[in-house]
Amino acid sequence: MDPTLQNLNYDSNGLIPAIVQDHQTGQVLMMAWMNRDSLAKTVETRKTHFFSRSRNKLWLKGESSGHVQHVKSIATDCDQDVLLVKVEQIGAACHEGYESCFFREHPGGITTKLIEEEAIS
Amino acid sequence: MDPTLQNLNYDSNGLIPAIVQDHQTGQVLMMAWMNRDSLAKTVETRKTHFFSRSRNKLWLKGESSGHVQHVKSIATDCDQDVLLVKVEQIGAACHEGYESCFFREHPGGITTKLIEEEAIS
Repeated sequence: MDPTLQNLNYDSNGLIPAIVQDHQTGQVLMMAWMNRDSLAKTVETRKTHFFSRSRNKLWLKGESSGHVQHVKSIATDCDQDVLLVKVEQIGAACHEGYESCFFREHPGGITTKLIEEEAIS
Repeated sequence: MDPTLQNLNYDSNGLIPAIVQDHQTGQVLMMAWMNRDSLAKTVETRKTHFFSRSRNKLWLKGESSGHVQHVKSIATDCDQDVLLVKVEQIGAACHEGYESCFFREHPGGITTKLIEEEAIS
């Protein structure tokens, strides 16, 4: 693995936030957590794998839904404590059926609108 | 403040990750942490404020550099535990002088390239 990806600043639980972005549209799809193993698995398979804090286990995104994410590139930030993963998303990124998990937008924090009218299947 | 922004799932330290994205280009600029106060300040002033975990205090992004971020919208994710803030960035987002903090890209995790050749001033 790229040496820079071996020198990441994981938090006290051994986790690092991974922002997932559509490589073509630039839409931010979701944020989830990775540990060393899930990052290695992501690099190896070119499909995103995360670490579930609630289930305390590694998971392949799209394992049951088929909505996998094909990895195009991985960037690290200046402090090496956040990942930005650009992907080709198959189906919907959000488990609620939306294209992106960020489907609630608050313009100015005053009013809320639903960005996507209907969840896609 | 928007009721949805009052019902966020902060972590055990009272923090929530905030992804900052350029509202026009879609470029992801940085990720930092907010608490209730910094979010309220962000909504009130329309400029991003974060909580520094190392300095244990609230800070206005661009306070010393002048590189402030004018907030265009705030979105929350399905779990209400991550924020996506779209901004107009003045100057460089990264304290190292780069447009985005994610200036190191690892295509496939094999090799590293610097996305931006030179830091902008």
